[in-house]
Formats: sequence, structure tokens, C-alpha cells
Amino acid sequence: MTTEIITIGDELLLGQVVDTNSAWLGQILFKNNISVDYKTAIKDQESAIINQLKTSLERSELIIITGGLGPTKDDITKKTLAQFFNMSWRIDQNVLKQLEQFFEKRGRQLLEINKIQAELPDQCETLENQWGTAPGMWFNIKNKIIISLPGVPYEMKNIFEHVALPKILKHFSTPILVQKTILTFNVPESLLAQQIEAIENNLPKNIGLAYLPNLNCVRLRLTGESVNKTDVAVQIDDIIKQIIRVLGKNVISEKDTTLVEIIYDLLKNNKKTLSLAESCTGGLISHQLTALPGSSSFFVGSVVSYSNSVKHHQLGVENTLFETVGAVSEQVVEQMAKGVRERLKTDYSIAVSGIAGPSGGSKEKPVGTVVIGVSSIHTTRVKKFHLIGDRENVIGRSSNHALNMLRELILEEN
Amino acid sequence: MTTEIITIGDELLLGQVVDTNSAWLGQILFKNNISVDYKTAIKDQESAIINQLKTSLERSELIIITGGLGPTKDDITKKTLAQFFNMSWRIDQNVLKQLEQFFEKRGRQLLEINKIQAELPDQCETLENQWGTAPGMWFNIKNKIIISLPGVPYEMKNIFEHVALPKILKHFSTPILVQKTILTFNVPESLLAQQIEAIENNLPKNIGLAYLPNLNCVRLRLTGESVNKTDVAVQIDDIIKQIIRVLGKNVISEKDTTLVEIIYDLLKNNKKTLSLAESCTGGLISHQLTALPGSSSFFVGSVVSYSNSVKHHQLGVENTLFETVGAVSEQVVEQMAKGVRERLKTDYSIAVSGIAGPSGGSKEKPVGTVVIGVSSIHTTRVKKFHLIGDRENVIGRSSNHALNMLRELILEEN
Repeated sequence: MTTEIITIGDELLLGQVVDTNSAWLGQILFKNNISVDYKTAIKDQESAIINQLKTSLERSELIIITGGLGPTKDDITKKTLAQFFNMSWRIDQNVLKQLEQFFEKRGRQLLEINKIQAELPDQCETLENQWGTAPGMWFNIKNKIIISLPGVPYEMKNIFEHVALPKILKHFSTPILVQKTILTFNVPESLLAQQIEAIENNLPKNIGLAYLPNLNCVRLRLTGESVNKTDVAVQIDDIIKQIIRVLGKNVISEKDTTLVEIIYDLLKNNKKTLSLAESCTGGLISHQLTALPGSSSFFVGSVVSYSNSVKHHQLGVENTLFETVGAVSEQVVEQMAKGVRERLKTDYSIAVSGIAGPSGGSKEKPVGTVVIGVSSIHTTRVKKFHLIGDRENVIGRSSNHALNMLRELILEEN
Repeated sequence: MTTEIITIGDELLLGQVVDTNSAWLGQILFKNNISVDYKTAIKDQESAIINQLKTSLERSELIIITGGLGPTKDDITKKTLAQFFNMSWRIDQNVLKQLEQFFEKRGRQLLEINKIQAELPDQCETLENQWGTAPGMWFNIKNKIIISLPGVPYEMKNIFEHVALPKILKHFSTPILVQKTILTFNVPESLLAQQIEAIENNLPKNIGLAYLPNLNCVRLRLTGESVNKTDVAVQIDDIIKQIIRVLGKNVISEKDTTLVEIIYDLLKNNKKTLSLAESCTGGLISHQLTALPGSSSFFVGSVVSYSNSVKHHQLGVENTLFETVGAVSEQVVEQMAKGVRERLKTDYSIAVSGIAGPSGGSKEKPVGTVVIGVSSIHTTRVKKFHLIGDRENVIGRSSNHALNMLRELILEEN
């Protein structure tokens, strides 16, 4: 079965918006044993939509389209689909009723422009949208399924998961795919590949291995296809065991997870609390942790100490240090880590100070120089790093190194 | 001229990685008057690459491929291109020399697997990679240009901007595109469309209008094509004037910018400083501000006060308030805003406290209840909001409302 996603919107091609919808669709489809083969972004243009539909209908059985269903004139997906499939129009009374309720609840007036959203091509099935105003559509054209969804992520995700996906799984019978991903830290991709070369050369034909590098983490993904789910899973588990035997401690998780999620689990399971003193990471670590629901059970707070004055007054770093050894130094970071842990009264803390660039570097401390500290009641550890890449890279790598140092400390102490 | 981007990698289709490369490419191409028509993500499979190349070569003159050039076995782009174009191999001695230097500088050993990166199809031109190990490639096939670049963003961006783009501009003569984007705040998309309906209906044929909604912001993008750059620019400027006449204060910028960038400029130009007290936004506002180089000139620091204890000890919020009115209240947020401004000694401050969900809501304060405060030496303002959407949405909308309240305050006082 060939599956594809088409996203509609000039903004995707112009790069004004990063397409996170199709990433989400790829994930949820794969979890349901459907692997996406093509993902294409096209313009808000009738000709582009029709051309792409022709190409897609030739090669795919399931086509999921997002975008272009809004109320404004630049949204032309519905009109183009009706025309392409040669359909006339119907008013969906249920949708009209929902629209009235939706606007009433928000105290807004139902405009004519909104009412048009209840008009649908007469031979499509409505995919109900309880989360917004544009309904989704389901077309069955000679047993090929074309689904059209709004582009607003919140609405698209809910309609897809709760309305479209159950219908897809009922319509298609899918092969069994098994996928496992493990997480490695601090081994460059090419070195990893050399270390597990023998294992990779002996992989069974139905199993593929992929390397996904990102900011000092490399995820290794094993994917297998079979008619027998248990067998593939056993095969993959065995290969993972072989990989771990070779890579040892550099495998930091046997799940498809992130460093932030590992810290979340470790702190929650051990009932420990965390505070942060962030200088060059500027709030990124706090943001990543608090993006996870339930983080308030272990995350107490942070001091984003961008200026030296905040490092001194809010964290208790001695003022003389800024002149003698500088803000990016082992001594300052040690005091930041201890200071934030003691003042915010937590079990653990992280402190980061560095030069993210592009300016601010010197001969002794070039851009990319970052000092990271982790602290517990028993010990405080500080390490200096020389990180490569641009500002975004240095901030991201600092965050990952900090989380990994904390991971090691928690594992040793619990 | 038809242009397309092909991104290669199972991880893009599986949604393990969000594709930011092609967004970046779309932006920089448009700035150089090249508009991208198709953007397709495909699997790391020989057959998928070849199929897509056939489709793309039929419809496009410029094809930019990213990904699949790494040193590991799952990277098959180079091999597949050589095969598809029927080319043999050559060793690029310059690349080999660069690789040796690259590894020596990092104190790492040059592995056999890395040396292979100097092997290239014999009829492609090398696009030098000074930022990593995989060189880019430039193919000219019957005057259609195919460019292959590594997928690592840092390397891809640098090779494209400094090496590939100048060659593209030399090869193609491009029409003139003019684009202007303005930023509106706090008017829903459908209401906006109704308000500017008359303007939209009278748009000249060579000019298009698009709505880009995101978290209470809607960007309005006008695009015009012409042989005469000045004329289109004048036309577009005139339409923007008409739109501003109708929307008034809801247009918060006449540039393609973001609220974070607006705050950056306002503070920098007025030589004012900022501190933040973030509860439910958990560091997002700090992270967004510090992601911009040079933010240290106005951003002093933040207290991410997730727990009430931090709100009390680090910001001076009265402990009794948590029991009487609760942490999500006008009184607490007022004290947070004043507290952080006074303690961190800044001209302005923002404070946010709310319930981002999915749990933590009550009948009186449902999920989405957020209180935001901004404070200066002269005044402190606090507003309560009821925001819709999931956790990510509530955090993002809170951040935008907070930045907008600060924007209004700074504009009034300076």
C-alpha cells in the first residue's frame, strides 16, 4: 500500500511556516502500521493541486491532504477537489448546527463567510470537526481514499485521530511493521557506524537500520516488516542487544525518547526535585522540561541569569570572580549550581554559562566555550566543553550535555 | 521556471524529525526571486529516489535535494544519483585534503568510512563543504540543474548560501517577485477577512493575498510578480496602506517580523532593560528572546517560578495570597511583575501565571485561564485571559499576549 501526504499552502514553500503537521501524521500512521511514502508541499493554486492529485492518484492508495480549508479566499482546496472530482454541492445541516454552537459558545457572531464552511462536495463523507470550524472530507474514488483536513494543527490532529484514522483502519488491511529506536549520546555518527559495522553487515534482509543524528545524540532506528509481529520483534530485540554489547554506556536509552524525557522519568520515579541556573541556554532547558505535562511534580523553577548582577544577587555568585576568572568559568558555574539548589531548595540542580556567539568570544574563550555544572546534596560536578556550530547549535548542545551530566549523577545516587 | 526541493530520509516521513531545511531553503530562494513550486519528502530508498527524480525532471528546471550524503550505509543519495545519471567515480583530491584537515583540527582519526566522502560521480561539479565532511554536488543534465546537499542543517545552509546559490543565480535569469508581509494581532482570521473584503475583491490580477494565522497573530502576505520591480512595490505598498486604514491598531508591524523581534527592537532602540517572571510559560519567553543574538544588551534575566515557594522567596509574593486568591490571580501576578522588576533592577518586566493543562483546572479557573502582567517604573498592568487549545497552544498564546502587552506599554512610555 502506498500512502502519501499533500500539504497545501504557499507559506510552506516560502518557508514562512515550518510544517509540523506532516511529521505528526507520519508518526501516528506508523504507529498504526501505515508507512508514508511521499510527502509533498504545494502552492495554493488550482493547477498545482490538480497536477499533484494526478501524480498522487497514479502511485498511491491513500492520500491525506492538509490545508486550504479556511474561510478566506486564499483557501481553495475544497473548491478544487469538487471540481476535480466533478461533484456538485450540498449543505451539511449538522455542520451548520455545529458552527452556530461554536460561535455562540465563544460569544462571536456567525458570519456569512463562516456559513460557507457547511457547504461540501455532494459525494464526500463529512469528517466532523468538533475542534474548529472547517470540517474534514473523505472521498472514495474507485477504492482510493482521499482525505482532506484543515491545516490548523490542533483541529487537524483531533479530526485525524478521532474521526479519520478509525475509518482508514477499517478500510485498509495493513502489513505488520515493527520499529524500535534506541538513543546514543556523544559518539559521532561515523564512529558509531564503524563500531557496529559487523552487526550492520549481518542484518537480516527484512530489517533496516537508520542513523538519526541531532546535537550530540544519535538515534538508531531498526525497522522490520513481516507477517508475524512476534518474530520481527524478537529479531530486532536481538540486534539491539548486540548493539548495546558494543556501544556500552553510550546507549542511554533503549526507547525512542529524548534526554528531557529521561530526566523527567528519573526525577519523577525517584521523587526528586530540580532547579536550574541558566545563562547561555537562556531558558531553553526550563522550556523543554515544562513543555511536558506534569513537570510541576519535580520542576521547582529556574533563574535565567543572563547578567552578572543576577548571577550575584539571585544565585549568590561572588562578585570578584567575574573580574578574576570571568562568568564562563568553573568557579562561577559551581557557585551558580550550588546557589540555585540551595536557594530554590531542590534535590538537584543544573547550571550553564557559556559563549553562544556569534559575538562575545575571545582567544582564551572562543565562541562555543561552555561550562556546565550539576549539583546534589552530596556532590557538585563541573565540566568545560568546546562546542561547535552556530548560536542555535551551541545552545542546543549545551542543553543536551547538561541533561546528560544530570542523568549520570541521578543514576549514580539513586 | 519551476523549482522543487526533494528531502530524503525515512525520519522525515516517520515524523521523527521535523524538516526545517526546506523551510529555510524556501525563504532564501524567495529572497532571490525564485519561488519553490514543489517540496517532496521521500524514503531512503533507491526506487523512491529514482521515481521522484523522474517526476521532478519532467516538471522542474531546478531541483535541490537534501539528505542522504552522510557516511553511514543508510545514506544512498550519492550512489543513486551516479547510477541514475550513468556516471562513474572520481576522487576529489581537494575534498580529501579538506577531510584530513577537518579531522586533524578536531583531534579525531580519519576513518576509511570518512574517506569515501571524497569519491564523487565523475560528471558532477563539487560544491565545497567547509563546514563538515560531505561535499555537495551540482549536476547539469540537459540544462536542468540538480543540486545535492547534506541534510545536516548547519552544513546544508552554509554550502547553499555561499557555494550553490551564487551558481544558481548565474545560471538562471529569474522574474522579479515582490513580497511584503504585515503582522496583525488578536483578530481571528475570518473576522479579518470580512473587514478587508472590499480590498481583497479589488486586488490587481498580478497580486495575491494570503492569511497566515498562528497563536493569535495573523500575518497578511502580499505577493506580486512583474517585470518592473518598482511598480509592483508601489502597488503593494498602496494596498498595505488601505489595509492599515481598515484594521488600524490591530496591525502591529508593517514588516515580516514576530512579536519577539518587535520587543527586541523596541528595547534596544530605547535602551531599556527587561526581566521576566515566568510561571506557566516555563521559560519559553526567555528562550525566544535569548535565541536572538545580541539579546544580552537588554535582557537581564528571568525567574521561572513554577512553585509557589519560588514565587514567594525569589519574587517576594506574599504567602497568604496563595491560599486566599491562588497563584493564578491578578494579585499574585502583580506582585510577580513588580517583584522581578525591582529585584533584577530592570526598566520593564513581564509576569505570567496560568493553567496550561491538561490537568490542574477547576470550575472557577478552567485550563486556559492565564493572568499576565507588565510593569514599568510608572505603572503595572494586569489582565486575565481565557485561552483555547492544548498545553502547547496555551503556553504559546500566553507568550504572545504577554509580549503584546509589553509592546503597548513600551510604545506609550517612549
